[in-house]
Amino acid sequence: MNNNYIIPNEWSVIEEVFDTDNVKASESLFSIGNGAMGQRANFEEDYSGETLQGSYIGGVYYPDKTRVGWWKNGYPEYFAKVLNAPNWIGIHIQINRTNLDLNVCEVSNFKRELNMKEGWLSRSFNAKLKTGEEIRVEAKRLISLELNEVGAIEYSVKALNFAGEITFSPYLDAGILNEDSNYDEYFWETLELVEGKQKGAILSKTLKTEFHVATAMEVSFELNTKKVPVEQISKVEEKSLTYSYTIKVSKGDIATIYKYASYVSSLNYQNNELIEASFNNVEKATELGFQDLLKLQKNAWEAIWKTSDIIIEGDVKAQQAIRFNIFQLNQTYIGTDARLNIGPKGFTGEKYGGSTYWDTEAYCIPFYMGTKDSNVAKNLLLYRYNQLDKAIENAEKLGFKNGAALFPMVTMNGEECHNEWEITFEEIHRNGAMLYGIYNYVKYTQDFEYVPKYGLEVMIAIARFWHQRANFSSDKNKYVILGVTGPNEYENNINNNFYTNYLAKWCIEYTVECLNNVKHNYPEDFKRIVEKTNLKGEETYSWLEVADKMYFPFSDKHQVYLQQDGFLDKELIPVNELPKSERPINQKWSWDRILRSCYIKQADVLQGMFFFEDKFSREELERHFDFYEPLTVHESSLSPCVHAILAASIDRMPKAYEQYLRTARLDLDDYNHEVDEGCHITSMAGTWMSIVQGFGGMRVSDEGKLSFNPQIPKEWKSYSFTINFRNQILKIKVNHSETVLELDGTMDVQIQVNNKTITVSPYNLVTV
Amino acid sequence: MNNNYIIPNEWSVIEEVFDTDNVKASESLFSIGNGAMGQRANFEEDYSGETLQGSYIGGVYYPDKTRVGWWKNGYPEYFAKVLNAPNWIGIHIQINRTNLDLNVCEVSNFKRELNMKEGWLSRSFNAKLKTGEEIRVEAKRLISLELNEVGAIEYSVKALNFAGEITFSPYLDAGILNEDSNYDEYFWETLELVEGKQKGAILSKTLKTEFHVATAMEVSFELNTKKVPVEQISKVEEKSLTYSYTIKVSKGDIATIYKYASYVSSLNYQNNELIEASFNNVEKATELGFQDLLKLQKNAWEAIWKTSDIIIEGDVKAQQAIRFNIFQLNQTYIGTDARLNIGPKGFTGEKYGGSTYWDTEAYCIPFYMGTKDSNVAKNLLLYRYNQLDKAIENAEKLGFKNGAALFPMVTMNGEECHNEWEITFEEIHRNGAMLYGIYNYVKYTQDFEYVPKYGLEVMIAIARFWHQRANFSSDKNKYVILGVTGPNEYENNINNNFYTNYLAKWCIEYTVECLNNVKHNYPEDFKRIVEKTNLKGEETYSWLEVADKMYFPFSDKHQVYLQQDGFLDKELIPVNELPKSERPINQKWSWDRILRSCYIKQADVLQGMFFFEDKFSREELERHFDFYEPLTVHESSLSPCVHAILAASIDRMPKAYEQYLRTARLDLDDYNHEVDEGCHITSMAGTWMSIVQGFGGMRVSDEGKLSFNPQIPKEWKSYSFTINFRNQILKIKVNHSETVLELDGTMDVQIQVNNKTITVSPYNLVTV
Repeated sequence: MNNNYIIPNEWSVIEEVFDTDNVKASESLFSIGNGAMGQRANFEEDYSGETLQGSYIGGVYYPDKTRVGWWKNGYPEYFAKVLNAPNWIGIHIQINRTNLDLNVCEVSNFKRELNMKEGWLSRSFNAKLKTGEEIRVEAKRLISLELNEVGAIEYSVKALNFAGEITFSPYLDAGILNEDSNYDEYFWETLELVEGKQKGAILSKTLKTEFHVATAMEVSFELNTKKVPVEQISKVEEKSLTYSYTIKVSKGDIATIYKYASYVSSLNYQNNELIEASFNNVEKATELGFQDLLKLQKNAWEAIWKTSDIIIEGDVKAQQAIRFNIFQLNQTYIGTDARLNIGPKGFTGEKYGGSTYWDTEAYCIPFYMGTKDSNVAKNLLLYRYNQLDKAIENAEKLGFKNGAALFPMVTMNGEECHNEWEITFEEIHRNGAMLYGIYNYVKYTQDFEYVPKYGLEVMIAIARFWHQRANFSSDKNKYVILGVTGPNEYENNINNNFYTNYLAKWCIEYTVECLNNVKHNYPEDFKRIVEKTNLKGEETYSWLEVADKMYFPFSDKHQVYLQQDGFLDKELIPVNELPKSERPINQKWSWDRILRSCYIKQADVLQGMFFFEDKFSREELERHFDFYEPLTVHESSLSPCVHAILAASIDRMPKAYEQYLRTARLDLDDYNHEVDEGCHITSMAGTWMSIVQGFGGMRVSDEGKLSFNPQIPKEWKSYSFTINFRNQILKIKVNHSETVLELDGTMDVQIQVNNKTITVSPYNLVTV
Repeated sequence: MNNNYIIPNEWSVIEEVFDTDNVKASESLFSIGNGAMGQRANFEEDYSGETLQGSYIGGVYYPDKTRVGWWKNGYPEYFAKVLNAPNWIGIHIQINRTNLDLNVCEVSNFKRELNMKEGWLSRSFNAKLKTGEEIRVEAKRLISLELNEVGAIEYSVKALNFAGEITFSPYLDAGILNEDSNYDEYFWETLELVEGKQKGAILSKTLKTEFHVATAMEVSFELNTKKVPVEQISKVEEKSLTYSYTIKVSKGDIATIYKYASYVSSLNYQNNELIEASFNNVEKATELGFQDLLKLQKNAWEAIWKTSDIIIEGDVKAQQAIRFNIFQLNQTYIGTDARLNIGPKGFTGEKYGGSTYWDTEAYCIPFYMGTKDSNVAKNLLLYRYNQLDKAIENAEKLGFKNGAALFPMVTMNGEECHNEWEITFEEIHRNGAMLYGIYNYVKYTQDFEYVPKYGLEVMIAIARFWHQRANFSSDKNKYVILGVTGPNEYENNINNNFYTNYLAKWCIEYTVECLNNVKHNYPEDFKRIVEKTNLKGEETYSWLEVADKMYFPFSDKHQVYLQQDGFLDKELIPVNELPKSERPINQKWSWDRILRSCYIKQADVLQGMFFFEDKFSREELERHFDFYEPLTVHESSLSPCVHAILAASIDRMPKAYEQYLRTARLDLDDYNHEVDEGCHITSMAGTWMSIVQGFGGMRVSDEGKLSFNPQIPKEWKSYSFTINFRNQILKIKVNHSETVLELDGTMDVQIQVNNKTITVSPYNLVTV
């Protein structure tokens, strides 16, 4: 596979060569979405080559029966996964009755562009059919941010060397499969097909979950940019609706189809209103027309970029990469709907079932807090709050009691969806991330009210979990946490993972601190919560007993906390002494060999030090970084960003930049040869953090104070980023000699820059 | 499910009530086999109720595609499993054209008997059809030990209240499925159907493995015990052959069909000879007739019992149970074919794929050594020797080098067939059992020649494995073995499992000892082996370095070896303080809870002390037994026997008897509610050991000396057992006052009884 075919460009992702080997990778990279729906960059016309078709609707999922080798008690029976939804983009194209299929044509002048500034995807090419006809195709597509149930396509065919017929056959197809269906089953049932003049709709529902979805289309035509009347031949099949329109062309003519489509779902409508609502949408879109939809789209993206853009001078590939990451994150999650979340592949693929991981709390919330109104991060927190009951049920399945909660490792609706005992049951540190997300939000936004209103219930349930999950070791005279998997999933079923134990202790302490705060400042909420959770006064003492006596493995010799008990029994050979041929170890080594090796998949002890940096001295950070980073293989996309930030914080810019490079163009350059399955959406937030928290050194203290400690990679001329800090828009520009701060807000903001407090006033540049 | 419907009887397994709920359990319990083929006790006639059809041919397997949740590097792609073979027993029975089906009849006077003394299965019942006809059926079945490719059925129907027609439709059906097929695929392809007069055959082959099997039948008929001519109506379908014969009967008449069938396979014939060979077999059987086959069968079983029977006086259920175990073991494995082995379910079910586990070396070899000629145990050792190359390949897949071997956890043909990383890759102690099997064999038989001829190559490969698998811990200044699963599978991915480390050290030391012996006494073999294995002189020093510096976790406080590092961090609450409602924990607890608990599935540290009892003092054995047994839940069928033997060896007969009871009637009383899936064949060898090594206290010292230390449970009057010790047949009878020894052999044998040496001469009773 070619890893380097994307043309560098500041604002667009561009490819200029048609190569069948790249089709699936480009389908991922050129995906478009609006948070509510998304679409891989599949071709509108037929394509007989290898392709992964993907149309997705946020929040519409299917509980696929799990497939396991050996069943373990406690496993969930279903794995909720994102659904490949009815195809809305399809247009069969025929030239003089011959099908257009790029897999069997001569293709030239191919170009694809994902314009990130304005939010659209275009594709153009010349094709010479086997039958001799030559055409020029120009297609453009968008999924509207403004009309968030609408997608629109403009598709023009120019007759280059012939006169004759061009037939457009736009269709809707509900007979679609998920590629990762465990048993090759259909997840959708077609309920109703509605045929109309230049429009139509299909009502379908998901099996088991019974989400109802109407998919509608409306089409119109132009010949040489003039409206043209057409005759319709309809084909209504069991699960699909196809209309054919033939336009007679002379040599040089351009025939254009506009296809407007809409998904509406029972998440937002009554089942019996769906067809009508979908028609309303496509009618509204048709009325606006493609150009006006495009204008609305540009405006909407302009607003997004205003508070989230990062500008890098002196490195166009870095510029392209960071914008690609910010763009994809915004395509995946907009933040207006607390029922939605951020799947690891967003709307760019099916892998990992499109479900929610702890990535959201650990990586995505900082991005959304930093670039949007605080309601967005709050909606992400509410997603978990709304799933608290299911997290309590989940813990009960594993033998926990008294309202203890274990949030799922992987979920769509709050139920656990993963079946690997060492992850499902043991990677329990995720529970700590739920609480860390709240803590981080409160710190950044100072919206402490979230705690009495929602957060505290989650915190109590999590504190209860840790209290029950730890056990007293009479041998160590301490509380221990046995049988866990840390963030470093290259260790399974270990005892006393430092990160997990540290989070557990911190969760309990922070919960008790918040409880006391709420007790004094929100007595009515306190009363309500105590009643609802049946919290006894003495209960918190038993929690604190566990926190106070928590055990942390520590090496006197190395003066570092150990990743887990027994870590020093391993052979500690740095990664750089491993032969290249043996890496990545997850492809080259058997699992047992990985497990008993010292190699670390992603930050583990260092993840803890990243989360709680101010609890450790500079020397401790350095010592731990020097001990663990050389043993880290960074085989998770979530690893480099944490190391980049930590390296920057201990003034190791070359290391920080090296790590940054591993994360920034992960997908665009397809480092892991897997972008065909979809992009690494959640780790894109880590890339953003690498710049803002890493190079920019942004921190918010426990007291809520904002600070920066800017550095710049020597490879760049300058960089700037914009953050939304408590509704003040702050732009920070860093070059090799100075940092310039600019505030687009309503009041003065006090900021620490390089440990000095400065005041930034609205529209008044401050240079440091 | 009714757990107690088997009627106690000294020599037979009997059921006297027809209960559809018991049908599948009885199908397992009443299974018959001859080591080469086996058959669940499915009914000959149609049965529309729940049933697990099972006909099996030893050594004929299919590599089913594995099913895993999440793939790990190193997993095998196929799981070789025992095949449900073409149905040879089927006979549709029609009474006046109405089908006989016990699921829809009134059934009375039902009786089933598995006669273990003579090796046959009978079934009789009265049935009243919905159409009013009443019949009496008497059926008998055997799988011949003498003609080991032949099964025979006698099936009589008496017309109790009507005159009319009885139609027998014997058939062969190759269109059969395995219930545990991972993807509901057919494993067999039908190649040829041969129709004949009262006989027929089907040639089929297994997909992928291409085992060719011919299944033949020949039938004959009697009316009131007189031969009767019949007319045949043949139905030849795609995968089956059915002949119908109608006999006119008057009230009181008895119509009988004899069906002789044969399996012959490409394991023993050329493909083009198979049909003929199968016909030869059924012709020979027909010629002999059912009664003569029965006589041959009785004689063959008499010979088996002569060297293997255990007689218990004063407890008929115990008597029935021990004979059932000895009987099933002999039905499963006869020992004449080194290509075969002993699946955990034998020929009684499909579960565990019919494959070979370490059970063979740890439990079955002692049984076969004790009750048969030494060639039988030798064949079991040769099975592994013949698979050494595949074990080396298997280790290479996991990164091992230089001819190190890892024998598979589960196998049919030497390739690993299990896909659970914590077992497949980590339950490596099985490698030690391979070597222990050789050691045990040499000790018992004094056939040291096996070592230079075959064993040493296996031993070198295993020593190399342990040498590479251990690593030096600079923290402990010892060699450690990280990331293993011990015999106690309720712990996964642990470090320094005492049993594994102990076996590893012992394997190396015993291998070096044998190498030195072979070097001096078999110099030509030594030369050949050194060349073949490319063994360097200094290599053994590096092995011994690992053995010498092997680390064993030990508790100073408890003065016991610890099952693994960190074991004392667990909460040590004895099993008897667990609420009954929480057991068995493998059904009541989630897997993570089991893992972090202290509960032990089966002997682990104690398995080591059982294997190497003479390396530990009496006080050590007691201390470890007292520490670990109370934490043991015995949720493996292989657990109680080891504890029974150890308890007896430290003079705790009540405990020994309690443990014995848990193993003896495991299947007959269906303790685990799973006998419908098949019997626990390998643990039956453990039951035999519980009596012979446990109560009888039989041991063979490293120097090859035989000793007994007999005790008797107070619940029994007496017991006796017979062993084959170096071709001398020794019978030991124990009651509460004395032990009587009797020798059926050719020379005096010196034996220690209760630490006193006595001499037993042929045919001369010695009373102690």
